[in-house]
Amino acid sequence: MRSKAVYKYLGKVLIGFSLTFIFPMLIALIYHEHIYPFLIPLLITIAVGVLLNFGLKKEKDLYAKQGFIIVALSWIVISILSAIPYMLNLHKSFFDALFEAVSGLTTTGATIMTDVESLDKSLLFWRSFTHFLGGMGVLAFVMAIIPLSKKDKSMHLLKAEMPGPSVAKLVPSLKKTLFLLYTIYIGLTLLEIILLIIGGTPVFDSILISFGTAGTGGFALHNDSIAAYSVFSKWVVAIFMLLFGVNFNIYFLILIKDFKNVLKSEELRTYILIYLAATAFIVFKTYRAFDTFSEALLEGAFHISSFMTSTGYSIGDINIYPAACRILVLFLMLVSACAGSTCGGFKMSRLIITYKKIRSDLQKLIHPNTIKEITFEGKRLDSTTVDSTTSFMLLYVVILIVIMFIVSFDPLNLSLSEIVNASFTAYANVGLCFDISNFANFSNLSKTVLSIGMLLGRLELFPMIVLVTNINKT
Amino acid sequence: MRSKAVYKYLGKVLIGFSLTFIFPMLIALIYHEHIYPFLIPLLITIAVGVLLNFGLKKEKDLYAKQGFIIVALSWIVISILSAIPYMLNLHKSFFDALFEAVSGLTTTGATIMTDVESLDKSLLFWRSFTHFLGGMGVLAFVMAIIPLSKKDKSMHLLKAEMPGPSVAKLVPSLKKTLFLLYTIYIGLTLLEIILLIIGGTPVFDSILISFGTAGTGGFALHNDSIAAYSVFSKWVVAIFMLLFGVNFNIYFLILIKDFKNVLKSEELRTYILIYLAATAFIVFKTYRAFDTFSEALLEGAFHISSFMTSTGYSIGDINIYPAACRILVLFLMLVSACAGSTCGGFKMSRLIITYKKIRSDLQKLIHPNTIKEITFEGKRLDSTTVDSTTSFMLLYVVILIVIMFIVSFDPLNLSLSEIVNASFTAYANVGLCFDISNFANFSNLSKTVLSIGMLLGRLELFPMIVLVTNINKT
Repeated sequence: MRSKAVYKYLGKVLIGFSLTFIFPMLIALIYHEHIYPFLIPLLITIAVGVLLNFGLKKEKDLYAKQGFIIVALSWIVISILSAIPYMLNLHKSFFDALFEAVSGLTTTGATIMTDVESLDKSLLFWRSFTHFLGGMGVLAFVMAIIPLSKKDKSMHLLKAEMPGPSVAKLVPSLKKTLFLLYTIYIGLTLLEIILLIIGGTPVFDSILISFGTAGTGGFALHNDSIAAYSVFSKWVVAIFMLLFGVNFNIYFLILIKDFKNVLKSEELRTYILIYLAATAFIVFKTYRAFDTFSEALLEGAFHISSFMTSTGYSIGDINIYPAACRILVLFLMLVSACAGSTCGGFKMSRLIITYKKIRSDLQKLIHPNTIKEITFEGKRLDSTTVDSTTSFMLLYVVILIVIMFIVSFDPLNLSLSEIVNASFTAYANVGLCFDISNFANFSNLSKTVLSIGMLLGRLELFPMIVLVTNINKT
Repeated sequence: MRSKAVYKYLGKVLIGFSLTFIFPMLIALIYHEHIYPFLIPLLITIAVGVLLNFGLKKEKDLYAKQGFIIVALSWIVISILSAIPYMLNLHKSFFDALFEAVSGLTTTGATIMTDVESLDKSLLFWRSFTHFLGGMGVLAFVMAIIPLSKKDKSMHLLKAEMPGPSVAKLVPSLKKTLFLLYTIYIGLTLLEIILLIIGGTPVFDSILISFGTAGTGGFALHNDSIAAYSVFSKWVVAIFMLLFGVNFNIYFLILIKDFKNVLKSEELRTYILIYLAATAFIVFKTYRAFDTFSEALLEGAFHISSFMTSTGYSIGDINIYPAACRILVLFLMLVSACAGSTCGGFKMSRLIITYKKIRSDLQKLIHPNTIKEITFEGKRLDSTTVDSTTSFMLLYVVILIVIMFIVSFDPLNLSLSEIVNASFTAYANVGLCFDISNFANFSNLSKTVLSIGMLLGRLELFPMIVLVTNINKT
């Protein structure tokens, strides 16, 4: 066991993370609100971090397994610490606060709040800021500020935290890769803030909405999400949600002017194609419910962007969707957008690899002697990668079934549809949900299992599973 | 292309199958009912069969691909021919008749009849008899009567038709294997008939109920399925459904007194364990709705047996099940019972192999350098078998989603639950369905896609897919 190294890393992560509480404190100061709901978790976080970091001896090299465990532990501990403001400011129960914190950090955006408009500005800021932090990853955030390891071994952490079947450094140095990623992330966010302000959205709202878009989260400042803003602002959000669903490698390629490889990206093309087809389908099936076609187009384009990128903002009543649209949306939620973006689901790239694997196996069935290689993004995939992708997909479905099964015990006597909707939206980190507007009335068991589902979905199963199997062995 | 060989085989199969219409004709004669609804399809079947068989030149050897195509084509043509009695006797539309015929042959048991008690005895017999034929396989039935090929190459046909990831001959000769399988099949059926008669069930009912049990079908003689029979008879059916869900190899092992291998069978042990656990859970969740515990136990044991073996008989109101029970049942329906039995779903063995594959991949993740082999029934599985199983599972889920999506277009405006229930019950060949008692009001599109789903489920995808991809290539 190298548990000491694990806890030492966790300590460093917590010290870095404690800084995040400063931002909502500043907002609280500006708006003359209480600062203690953020000061207390800040102090607790630092204290725990320092104890873990300096109480333990010299760190050792990191292995893949430790990477998974550190990521899983960090997310769980940080979720609990991030829940404290909800408990202190609103006197929410632990389960409610944890649900909201996990929903924020995993960029889900499902809420237990029945009236967000009554919340303090500082708490609204904290909710949306957790989206921004969780989107790129809390460890990535910490690593961008402080070096976790001298030997550049932190790649294991990034791999375990970043979504998608494979993570590559953009440039040889991890530090520079992180810097580039954060430049793109913050740059796009700033651009959205500016465009929203141009669209007539108040500055505070623009910042928070952009945090939620960037992390593909979905917490909003109004009870009707972002339905009240201008048409221009809605289109801005619709387009930026889509942009944050793109693999960040693509933006790197654009930055270095390698447009040829941008156009060649299979994942990007599939993503855009599926988005356009799904939007066309939804608009075709729902346009009769609207006064004008442009309204129908905006709602369709917005909501499919919101569902597919796992953001969860809404601008109208999605419950008008007929069954065919709902099934399509549930499927899109599970797939979500590109690997290497801030979105949830199992990612477009895994859909493509699985499709190719099935196709190749069917071909083998008909012509047993022909061997056809599976390629993705122009590269040949070795059988281990393909294999682990299909395994991941099966495990993904199995865990989804388990979540639905546990949620079905809720004393609310949920219908099968409600169970499916709630489980899908949490697990795929979407937050927007047919027939369910908030999770306040769900039982503590349901809230806990949905919180675990959000973490499993955000971290793509493995870190959590390695953590659990490791607990069993120690 | 070897399409001539394919059609020649199809001709032979049809000639053999034409004999089956003689049985309901005899019943019609006994009960003084019309015989033309069966005589006409008999003559058509013979005519088409003779034309195909003698109109074409000498047959060639069979390859795996041809095996799939012959099986798929045979099932489609035989389904259409089996639909004729419903059209002639009841003036049902083509889509209704086809749904009923496919439901019978695939041993699903979902019906478009609103009042089965008003049907002619000969038609009731035909419905249940198609279960008996389809259970073991229509080609297996024909092969048991007439030799299809001199060179014992018909194994490809049996492999393509028989359920489960692998089919083995019990004894070296295919002919003798078929004879043994049919001896077990008919022997168990006769035993059930006798026990039902002892239980006070009328002889005609006993025969038909046993046909439905043997094929794990589910068509009944009464509108309330088999709720009206004695408690003894209900227990007999419950136990025989379970017995027909066991891999027939197990009965062969019992016949040759190899009890050691019976006890060692992983699939059998898992099957029994899951059955007992699920029954205990259902009884625990529903017993309050019953007057006595023994009633609750009978209903739980019966319905789980019915769902898990994809039979679909019922003895009470399953709509009292709370959501947790429904999700469990939907899962059990998809898994179903053992490979090499007459049941539907993707089979217990695939569940076990998938579980082991996921477990081994997780172990690889934690300890990348350890290689652990996957074994099943004491034998090491090569990676191709494991691989094709996981591919099959993914394809199975994908096709299920497509079916649900198409059914969601039904003008009945079905709820998500109804779409899920209808698609699961057809695809897994169960027939019993929450909230839906018959499919009479479904649109022709839904009936067609559910019929295709039943065929895909019964033939385990590949024959139908090879047929479709082959059509595209000619």
